[in-house]
Amino acid sequence: MKEYILLIDTTDDKGLVYNISKVLYANNLNIEQNSEYVDPDTLKFFMRTVITGDIKKDILLKELKEVLPLNSTIKLNEKQNKDVVILATKESHVLGDLLIRYFDGELNANIKAVIANHEHLRDLVEKFDIPFYCVSAEGLSREEHEDKMIEKINEFEPELIVLAKYMRILTSKFVNTYPKRVLNIHHSFLPAFIGANPYKQAYERGVKIIGATAHYVTDDLDEGPIIFQDVVRVDHSYSWQEMRNAGRNVEKIVLYNAFQLLLDDKVFVYKNKTVIL
Amino acid sequence: MKEYILLIDTTDDKGLVYNISKVLYANNLNIEQNSEYVDPDTLKFFMRTVITGDIKKDILLKELKEVLPLNSTIKLNEKQNKDVVILATKESHVLGDLLIRYFDGELNANIKAVIANHEHLRDLVEKFDIPFYCVSAEGLSREEHEDKMIEKINEFEPELIVLAKYMRILTSKFVNTYPKRVLNIHHSFLPAFIGANPYKQAYERGVKIIGATAHYVTDDLDEGPIIFQDVVRVDHSYSWQEMRNAGRNVEKIVLYNAFQLLLDDKVFVYKNKTVIL
Amino acid sequence: MKEYILLIDTTDDKGLVYNISKVLYANNLNIEQNSEYVDPDTLKFFMRTVITGDIKKDILLKELKEVLPLNSTIKLNEKQNKDVVILATKESHVLGDLLIRYFDGELNANIKAVIANHEHLRDLVEKFDIPFYCVSAEGLSREEHEDKMIEKINEFEPELIVLAKYMRILTSKFVNTYPKRVLNIHHSFLPAFIGANPYKQAYERGVKIIGATAHYVTDDLDEGPIIFQDVVRVDHSYSWQEMRNAGRNVEKIVLYNAFQLLLDDKVFVYKNKTVIL
Amino acid sequence: MKEYILLIDTTDDKGLVYNISKVLYANNLNIEQNSEYVDPDTLKFFMRTVITGDIKKDILLKELKEVLPLNSTIKLNEKQNKDVVILATKESHVLGDLLIRYFDGELNANIKAVIANHEHLRDLVEKFDIPFYCVSAEGLSREEHEDKMIEKINEFEPELIVLAKYMRILTSKFVNTYPKRVLNIHHSFLPAFIGANPYKQAYERGVKIIGATAHYVTDDLDEGPIIFQDVVRVDHSYSWQEMRNAGRNVEKIVLYNAFQLLLDDKVFVYKNKTVIL
Repeated sequence: MKEYILLIDTTDDKGLVYNISKVLYANNLNIEQNSEYVDPDTLKFFMRTVITGDIKKDILLKELKEVLPLNSTIKLNEKQNKDVVILATKESHVLGDLLIRYFDGELNANIKAVIANHEHLRDLVEKFDIPFYCVSAEGLSREEHEDKMIEKINEFEPELIVLAKYMRILTSKFVNTYPKRVLNIHHSFLPAFIGANPYKQAYERGVKIIGATAHYVTDDLDEGPIIFQDVVRVDHSYSWQEMRNAGRNVEKIVLYNAFQLLLDDKVFVYKNKTVIL
Repeated sequence: MKEYILLIDTTDDKGLVYNISKVLYANNLNIEQNSEYVDPDTLKFFMRTVITGDIKKDILLKELKEVLPLNSTIKLNEKQNKDVVILATKESHVLGDLLIRYFDGELNANIKAVIANHEHLRDLVEKFDIPFYCVSAEGLSREEHEDKMIEKINEFEPELIVLAKYMRILTSKFVNTYPKRVLNIHHSFLPAFIGANPYKQAYERGVKIIGATAHYVTDDLDEGPIIFQDVVRVDHSYSWQEMRNAGRNVEKIVLYNAFQLLLDDKVFVYKNKTVIL
Repeated sequence: MKEYILLIDTTDDKGLVYNISKVLYANNLNIEQNSEYVDPDTLKFFMRTVITGDIKKDILLKELKEVLPLNSTIKLNEKQNKDVVILATKESHVLGDLLIRYFDGELNANIKAVIANHEHLRDLVEKFDIPFYCVSAEGLSREEHEDKMIEKINEFEPELIVLAKYMRILTSKFVNTYPKRVLNIHHSFLPAFIGANPYKQAYERGVKIIGATAHYVTDDLDEGPIIFQDVVRVDHSYSWQEMRNAGRNVEKIVLYNAFQLLLDDKVFVYKNKTVIL
Repeated sequence: MKEYILLIDTTDDKGLVYNISKVLYANNLNIEQNSEYVDPDTLKFFMRTVITGDIKKDILLKELKEVLPLNSTIKLNEKQNKDVVILATKESHVLGDLLIRYFDGELNANIKAVIANHEHLRDLVEKFDIPFYCVSAEGLSREEHEDKMIEKINEFEPELIVLAKYMRILTSKFVNTYPKRVLNIHHSFLPAFIGANPYKQAYERGVKIIGATAHYVTDDLDEGPIIFQDVVRVDHSYSWQEMRNAGRNVEKIVLYNAFQLLLDDKVFVYKNKTVIL
């Protein structure tokens, strides 16, 4: 029997759960898993429900809409792999980790293509029989290059775009073309060491722990909603290059974990934060 | 406004959430937080709901009982400190950590008494103006001693009993007198190193990580449902005594975390496992 | 037989280890443990050696001085508890944790006194039969208050001063009175969230991990050499107060670990970093 | 200038460091890094020294031999990639992780070949232009199969053999053919859950943390000296398959870390333990 994930994002109100579960019950659906969260500051209500049964999607959405506040966001996703496009540049460690996990069946995703602004990663990607496209920025303005990127990305109609060390700064236009759909890995334990070469900064500062952060991309560089973070211990004997290498291992794990959360429809965004249910 | 925690443990069935939320709604109560879990193997349904409102406890329980399967367990606890009795023997590290946290207001508990089978810890406990009782096992059979312990414990009608390195083996009688109410800290990463002197065992085995485990006490020594575990890295330079010292820090943290979960009514037990919502 | 810890901090040079070990050998001393580190950037050489034997301290130091570069720092500490003074203000969690560990024999220290700028913690400290002094800042300039603090501190000739949530900003004069001898706990994962109310900052930013940092106090507020750091996971359901509570547990562990490293003479400082051997 | 790693494993004695460093000094060599450890129980002395200079290997070894006890083990390895053969069966996750790291230049190794007892992994391995050999056990006795494995392995004269989920039990003959040269990853936090399907065991037991262990292979199945371990949190919502998936991520990380330690000549073995310097 098919599994669906119902995602509701609305304003808290008495009887919400009752009204929602009433509709599910009337439609003869079973709740396999359910979690709710109400943010006490904003009184925003978030609900993620895994349901099974013979679902008539349009009817269900219509009936839910009727019992929910006007400003509600209601999503009903069948539990299935999401179409994804990965963007990269030259670095292979994060991309390679995703590809090998994909090969291994670890990702609930269909990687439709890898698009890079350099040729370096073509061999790696093609090993895995995944289409690779190079959209060079050579001699193009940022806007011109992005238009070509967007055009290429849209060919694959991805639900998610994963930046696997894509080293170009994105314009508002790009970001707003894919709201809440672009996942990035930042090579530092945000908000520490924002900006260039965080590992060198970390080395100079003599920190004992370094980390990485996966976040949604927004107009604010390195300031998007944080989805997942992890850290690793380092010590005085690490050169900044060794810190970078240690950090790369964290980057892989952090991006992988955040990616899975998105693929499983577990992440809500509000204000500049995430709720993970 | 008072907060209550509703705990439901029953068999999964279509419409459960609907029927429960219907009753809450009809009683004009608000759901602040809610999580459910259905165990796919046993089809057991667990629900923890934080509700606010003007609650008529008997009516609410009666109405919930009417809409739930016969075998259901329904608890409705006002959110308030629980009465606790701590049992100890001679070791002070875990007890001391609890006492200083209690002094600091970190525990949602009323520590009614500390009862030990030796005098060693009297000074420590009395520093914190908590009643200390020594029930010596001197010249008593295990059963005789336990009867005296039970008698003393019952004077304080505790909801929870915490074994803070209480080094006596408990009989079935004792365990069954307080079902799902006795919390123990085991000084190893169960199920590794069951039995005596786990740190010496760990040292001999040359492990690189040691841990501790907090679990409910059952008839099966060291085999009760696990509530919380944590670990710490060690290396070749640790003597077994140093491993023990490192382990003691984990024991404190693990017992504290498990204790908080119980105080917050977040732990369900089924089969020999815990569900934490 | 007495154990000594030999600490050498000098410029790297061929034959250093040979010359040092030659002196130790000539003095009929045994090396129990030894680690060296050479910083490749600065060619600074650090060595920590645990030696046993019948030591004539002056002779040994004289002979070592003869074989080492002029700019060398040579320390020879008998392995024994260090005299410590703790400074505090009103918060009890870090202080309480230190006191209970001290009571439990976990610290290789003699806590000579706790000095605070308020009376709040007197009861707690006196429970443990440790002298408590309140040096109020009431109506005093920062300099006047610090002079009184320094006067009181010096009565106890401490080797180390531990700031257990001492909430006063220290002047250069104070810092320079006790170079590399003042340990502080900062309630954030430095360099993230420098400044006031880091937990509120962390909450606003929606981070998934928070931490704490123990560092030497220098003129640069929150910028001293980092000794130890640790972190804990948090999620969207944490209010900033709950983040603070989770953070307090990390603060305790971090300060304790850094304190132990100092008590064991394992920390060297160079540039604005620490080498831990 | 070439870097060498000097590894000494002997019985502790006064003047050891002096005598060793004297030889190094006389040979005009520089000590870049040095750590020693003396096991207090056995009085075994372990030393790892990174040296640079113009080394005449035979002379140096001869002179060191002269100043060290007879039973000493002295190794002098040039810092360079080690030749490695990987054994596998059908599972791709650990092998794939090693291959992608190898591709990415993370491993100080030359992977000469992957040898498996099934054909399943040929495609994966050959993507990376690494020779793949299938030595089927079809219709062979354990001894016959191992003889063919040994024959194939020896073609590549590997310094290290890595078992990347090689699911065959090894005989004493095999183990003794490659003493202290066979690295295995065990899919549990040893010594917990020894034997078949540890994840199912862990699930049944309801543990809150699972782990993995990398160890040298000895005659004692799952009992060899432990090199590295790590863990990950799980909870009641994990099926045993989900625990296995979570565990696979730990297996990768643990094997990678242990492998690096061996490649960097940082691991000594004594009794059934490892010293890591």
